[in-house]
Amino acid sequence: MGGDEGCGVVVDGVRLALQAYPAIEQVFLVGNEQEIGPAMVHHRLGDARVKIVHTTEVLTMEDKPLTAVRKKKDSSLVRAIELVKEGAAEAVISQGNTGALIAASTLILRRLEGVEHPAIAAVMPSAKGEFLLIDAGAKPDCKPVHLLQFAIMGHVYSREILGHRQPRVGILSNGAEEHKGNELTREAARLCQQADLNFIGYVEGHDMFADHVEVAVTDGFTGNIVLKGCEGIGKGMMRLLKRELAATPLRRLGAALAGKAFLNFKQKFDPDAYGGAPILGLNSTVIKAHGAARQYAIMNALRVCTEAIQHHINDIIQQEIGRANHLVTPPAAAAVPA
Amino acid sequence: MGGDEGCGVVVDGVRLALQAYPAIEQVFLVGNEQEIGPAMVHHRLGDARVKIVHTTEVLTMEDKPLTAVRKKKDSSLVRAIELVKEGAAEAVISQGNTGALIAASTLILRRLEGVEHPAIAAVMPSAKGEFLLIDAGAKPDCKPVHLLQFAIMGHVYSREILGHRQPRVGILSNGAEEHKGNELTREAARLCQQADLNFIGYVEGHDMFADHVEVAVTDGFTGNIVLKGCEGIGKGMMRLLKRELAATPLRRLGAALAGKAFLNFKQKFDPDAYGGAPILGLNSTVIKAHGAARQYAIMNALRVCTEAIQHHINDIIQQEIGRANHLVTPPAAAAVPA
Repeated sequence: MGGDEGCGVVVDGVRLALQAYPAIEQVFLVGNEQEIGPAMVHHRLGDARVKIVHTTEVLTMEDKPLTAVRKKKDSSLVRAIELVKEGAAEAVISQGNTGALIAASTLILRRLEGVEHPAIAAVMPSAKGEFLLIDAGAKPDCKPVHLLQFAIMGHVYSREILGHRQPRVGILSNGAEEHKGNELTREAARLCQQADLNFIGYVEGHDMFADHVEVAVTDGFTGNIVLKGCEGIGKGMMRLLKRELAATPLRRLGAALAGKAFLNFKQKFDPDAYGGAPILGLNSTVIKAHGAARQYAIMNALRVCTEAIQHHINDIIQQEIGRANHLVTPPAAAAVPA
Repeated sequence: MGGDEGCGVVVDGVRLALQAYPAIEQVFLVGNEQEIGPAMVHHRLGDARVKIVHTTEVLTMEDKPLTAVRKKKDSSLVRAIELVKEGAAEAVISQGNTGALIAASTLILRRLEGVEHPAIAAVMPSAKGEFLLIDAGAKPDCKPVHLLQFAIMGHVYSREILGHRQPRVGILSNGAEEHKGNELTREAARLCQQADLNFIGYVEGHDMFADHVEVAVTDGFTGNIVLKGCEGIGKGMMRLLKRELAATPLRRLGAALAGKAFLNFKQKFDPDAYGGAPILGLNSTVIKAHGAARQYAIMNALRVCTEAIQHHINDIIQQEIGRANHLVTPPAAAAVPA
């Protein structure tokens, strides 16, 4: 229920996903049935695998995560997560309040054994392919062990879901040399060097987009600003290009002739193509879809869910985190309370 | 001497600046005269205001800032700063190693009274205009008082040099609400609220490019990653667009017809237009020009220098920092050692 575009795009995205991915056994649409029902009629979603779960409360962007989760038990967010807890569902997708989604899924589903904090893994476009930015906003104040664990979770996700055989993992920094970075990254780099990772050290802001790295690790504060900053400049460039191309009849003609070029250009930077960001480190598959996501983004979020379940991502993460927790030397890793 | 393109672009940029800005009384070209001399002949720079100051040592990107500054006394960087110290020059511009530039100018020129640490102020394009990102990389590990001072210095620069009457100042954060941010930003926001600033609170990554703010304040770690990340995605988008437009004869024709649109588009995101980033908080005008800067960037860096001197930026910064240091309440501000 939390998307900017209303529940119509969700319903339509589910319809597309059910056509595309036969492995999906059941989809619960959790929210106000007075909105969902008509949207299903409108988008001709009549699949027997779909079930509405009616809820009465609404979680907004203004709600503080923890209190919202504790007080709004009958919100679509809390009910959807409860369905996973009860075993009726194996994954949850939400377009709503990110903080509340993380708080509710951590409280209700719990973290994977050995994981200190969940992280948002966002897939972003690079020059020739894509890379994973982790954490994109779940944990603003990080300790070194958090970054180590984000590196491991990102590594697993990149390998198992994005298909990189040996993903290069780097820590975002203000310079490539070892003496650069801040207190957090220097200790985190030391831990990553000890873990079983294809760790390449520090990567700079521009390296991410130049295919230097498949997994860019950072704290949730920096990651969130980078993610939104890049989205912002991308959108700004797109808008400016559009305006410039529409300014004279000659330019409009030129733009029409080169039309396919712009379409490809736009698609490459379309967040809808990436299908939502998994929140890794939890006892289930939890996907944050962009608030502004449209039907193809929702469809892709369902694809990501299906793949994460089929690849047993969480089992692998739990194993590798356990192994890393043994590998790295105290005090840094051991001193951080769970 | 430290630029990627050699000293020819610097010589040519100086020629352009001397033509454009008659207020410039003298320019010292500090470096190897065997390279500078021929470049001056090649670029027909015969202005009587130009003087070569020959140096024999070379500071590289690999040199560690502090040791480099202490050991390479006859590098162009150290000699250029010494010229300012001696009173022969009023400002210094460098394309070289940023860390060394900050270390050398802090050691030799000293900080302005009351300033805890210098900061790099980078002008960046937004949807309709531009904004100042401060700190873009001088101080990776920050305390709240640093962010307060960056806010004040950015505010002064935006008002005096960029011409914003009442610049809106915001702190970069992972969310707009007060409970967002990290430990650093929450305390810094409290301090900024007490200072004489047009402080608008937190701004998110995308807000910077949407004209929400004239001064975006952040620590040098985050700022550097944001700056380079945005440069990286900007370049990547430009490259992709070029490739797409060149892919078929029809697209090439379209691109040719709409040519002016692309030119304007490119110019808007051309770092050369912004003329280098001032390092604020020092007892003189110090400008970091991009390593990849070409002649127009150098010309613009000389313009920025001239304006900073004419507007007595440093006197104003020192006054306003002094006032803020009295306004804000301890312990946060007072507890930080100089």
